[in-house]
Amino acid sequence: MQARSVRLADIAAQLGGEVVGDPETRVSQVATLKSAGPEHISFFAQGRYREELQATRAGAVIVSAEERDATTLPRIVCADPYLYFAQVSRLLNPPAPVQPGVHPSAVIDASAFIDPTAHIGPGCVIEAGANIGPGVAVGAGCIVGARSTIGEGSRLYPRVTIYADCVIGRRAIIHSGAVIGADGFGFAQQQGRWLKIPQIGRVVIGDDVEIGANTTIDRGALDDTVIEEGVKLDNQIQIGHNCRIGAHTAIAGCAGIAGSTTIGRHCMIGGAAMIGGHLHIADRVVISGGTWVTRSIEEPGMYLSVIPATPAREWRRTVALLRGLDKLYERVRRSGRGKTGTENEE
Amino acid sequence: MQARSVRLADIAAQLGGEVVGDPETRVSQVATLKSAGPEHISFFAQGRYREELQATRAGAVIVSAEERDATTLPRIVCADPYLYFAQVSRLLNPPAPVQPGVHPSAVIDASAFIDPTAHIGPGCVIEAGANIGPGVAVGAGCIVGARSTIGEGSRLYPRVTIYADCVIGRRAIIHSGAVIGADGFGFAQQQGRWLKIPQIGRVVIGDDVEIGANTTIDRGALDDTVIEEGVKLDNQIQIGHNCRIGAHTAIAGCAGIAGSTTIGRHCMIGGAAMIGGHLHIADRVVISGGTWVTRSIEEPGMYLSVIPATPAREWRRTVALLRGLDKLYERVRRSGRGKTGTENEE
Amino acid sequence: MQARSVRLADIAAQLGGEVVGDPETRVSQVATLKSAGPEHISFFAQGRYREELQATRAGAVIVSAEERDATTLPRIVCADPYLYFAQVSRLLNPPAPVQPGVHPSAVIDASAFIDPTAHIGPGCVIEAGANIGPGVAVGAGCIVGARSTIGEGSRLYPRVTIYADCVIGRRAIIHSGAVIGADGFGFAQQQGRWLKIPQIGRVVIGDDVEIGANTTIDRGALDDTVIEEGVKLDNQIQIGHNCRIGAHTAIAGCAGIAGSTTIGRHCMIGGAAMIGGHLHIADRVVISGGTWVTRSIEEPGMYLSVIPATPAREWRRTVALLRGLDKLYERVRRSGRGKTGTENEE
Repeated sequence: MQARSVRLADIAAQLGGEVVGDPETRVSQVATLKSAGPEHISFFAQGRYREELQATRAGAVIVSAEERDATTLPRIVCADPYLYFAQVSRLLNPPAPVQPGVHPSAVIDASAFIDPTAHIGPGCVIEAGANIGPGVAVGAGCIVGARSTIGEGSRLYPRVTIYADCVIGRRAIIHSGAVIGADGFGFAQQQGRWLKIPQIGRVVIGDDVEIGANTTIDRGALDDTVIEEGVKLDNQIQIGHNCRIGAHTAIAGCAGIAGSTTIGRHCMIGGAAMIGGHLHIADRVVISGGTWVTRSIEEPGMYLSVIPATPAREWRRTVALLRGLDKLYERVRRSGRGKTGTENEE
Repeated sequence: MQARSVRLADIAAQLGGEVVGDPETRVSQVATLKSAGPEHISFFAQGRYREELQATRAGAVIVSAEERDATTLPRIVCADPYLYFAQVSRLLNPPAPVQPGVHPSAVIDASAFIDPTAHIGPGCVIEAGANIGPGVAVGAGCIVGARSTIGEGSRLYPRVTIYADCVIGRRAIIHSGAVIGADGFGFAQQQGRWLKIPQIGRVVIGDDVEIGANTTIDRGALDDTVIEEGVKLDNQIQIGHNCRIGAHTAIAGCAGIAGSTTIGRHCMIGGAAMIGGHLHIADRVVISGGTWVTRSIEEPGMYLSVIPATPAREWRRTVALLRGLDKLYERVRRSGRGKTGTENEE
Repeated sequence: MQARSVRLADIAAQLGGEVVGDPETRVSQVATLKSAGPEHISFFAQGRYREELQATRAGAVIVSAEERDATTLPRIVCADPYLYFAQVSRLLNPPAPVQPGVHPSAVIDASAFIDPTAHIGPGCVIEAGANIGPGVAVGAGCIVGARSTIGEGSRLYPRVTIYADCVIGRRAIIHSGAVIGADGFGFAQQQGRWLKIPQIGRVVIGDDVEIGANTTIDRGALDDTVIEEGVKLDNQIQIGHNCRIGAHTAIAGCAGIAGSTTIGRHCMIGGAAMIGGHLHIADRVVISGGTWVTRSIEEPGMYLSVIPATPAREWRRTVALLRGLDKLYERVRRSGRGKTGTENEE
């Protein structure tokens, strides 16, 4: 991707921070310390990259006040180098401008509304009553179902499917293969067969939400499934019907949230974590990757339940010991009674 | 979604049950007790919603015989309120009628057969020799591979891919992003490289099967992968080559079934459960969510192996203790020998 | 799928091995011992299929030297029957020839290069500066982003998405729904909100890589995500930004690799295994299915951490015992002290 060249002085003027060294130094792209060249600006946030800082060929570096003198390269001193680096990268890599217009191969229902500043890519299908807001970019092959709305400034990458009656907020980013609003998994038992229950709720997504590739968010069974503003969802996440994900919560790839679960604001859910149905997770809870949540969590803090990989022979022994725990407890209990005749713990 | 208005008397005439209160009461949609208004019918199945029943603004409620007097609202008394509710919802929310016809942007091979009552959406590709049955709805952007058949009354949501030579039964519902018939993961080792083994089996799917968004079902390596009638698969499930899933089994989201495994009839597999390859699971087995099945299960019943989320500090301690179990056993053994000189358990 | 008929003598001439019995025996397809008919060639590799070997109706069988006399059927004796079988299957089931040409419904940017021997299916979108190599088959509805390149002889099944600036090697096989090059999950915290960090790296994929259905490989944040030659990825795998997967490593379905992790060559990663971020896995490591890797692994060998499914009542008891381990250790420690007054282990 191409980026324009800017002076450190210009960066500091926009983003704050103090330039140390030549403020006329020009950079055109961000890079890691290791791979940077003279046209790049890099950042140094953690001590463990100190060697790479010494060896870097970067044209400039972003450092914290404490590390002001850790390099002699032109640098910008700021409070949070990683955040500053993110901001510089956004400055140097603005999103491609949206080209207004509807590709002739797109199929647009006559009752759909497409804002004249929106872009509709090749092969898109926009169904009856759908509403595509100003500055929206709908990538090739996307489907926007009947009566669904896409808020201003949102970007759908190719091959996103939005079912009917869903609401996508402003400035959403939705990656390829995501499916928003498919039926939840709702059935009643009828003499050994499963009777499908119509899923008549919607998916309602707030502003500034990002949704990763091949992630699926089911529509509500009766009420809506709700993703609040600022939520960030990685790839291949499954969110069941009637869930509510609180604002500014981030969920890493392959996680799954079963139906009717409510997750608080500012939570962090690790990769492949699984949260059972009909639970409540409080604000500011951190669920470590791979953890299985079977009960509501009402206290902020970090939770986990994963057992780290172990050499096979050792682990098989541990599982055998685990299966023998009952006997071990019994033995210790007997042993204790044998000694004192009184203990009756556990 | 719009729904028509019906009288309680009409509902009971169709579905059975006894109307208590005004049989002329009209309802047009189902809703939860909490969100219902006068135009809605709700249901009361579990004691823990009793407060919501008292507070509900619903126009009518479905209750069991035991709870006949739990409300003074117009109500229908029946044996299984949840099932009855599902039936009422189906009555009020029938699937959209299928509009026969092939969209001009669809690409249909001359040798494919499309029943005149079927609907083929924009951008679909129907390959050589494929057969689309009566009343089938194929959503926008679906691909039906060569010689594959879709049975009467099935509905494919947009962007479903069916590879060549697959068989989909009648009344199937397949959600967006599902991929039916991709190659199984079959390779032979040849001097440190992987040699691909052609996957020449099919996927054969029975009647009344539902397949969730982004679920993948691989074609057989030699024989077929088979999904029997009435199976319900949630989103993002992976089913490996040569599996057979027994009739009326339900599998929740993110589960995975490795190759050549046979699952019985009327099983329930929880979300993110993983079942190893070349196993056999008996009829009526329940696998709890997140459980890892490594051996065949021949007895009906419920199986699990998940450890629930635990505050981080506590869990790290538990893992350390787990890793020390060998020593603990040894110590108890020594302690026992010390006392009796004879024990040699475990 | 159709296959041509060949003589055992012809097979052995091409692939080696010794024909025992009539070398004029013709076979047209491979099959399992159980389902084979007279037109099929099957293989016998493991003792546990000996009964099926006795009962088979196959026209010919592939056996090892040790099992030369295990059947009286026409047979080919070779060193590795499973590999030989794979080779025979490849002989009998060659990939469908690629039909050169661009479907009129495809949307090709004027600045894209399509080799005249390549096939571009209906509804494909090939963006500016993309390069489609000789003999490449791009299935219906695929998207190839700006400046991305697809190497000679690669095959994309329908509905694959390649984002901009990615590199796909030669002879790749990419299954439907795969998404290559979506943004990695990169955000900086800014006053409780997530600030997106532009993902400016690429995905670079070597030769002879296979990628399963609905698998996602994220583009690098700054440097590239790299999949080396001969890697085989099953369905629904998630590979985070900046990962490097070493040559000839195979990863089974539903596995996830978090960002910036490097995996060695010739590794085998089981289904649903999860590998944390910023780790290093050595060459020739085997990770068992469902295992969670939280630390780097520098020694070849097999690792696991999965607890097999257990009847529910028994497992709940085990979890309770696990939670009581702290007390058990304490009790054993006290008991030991009681006896000797000196022990202070663990």
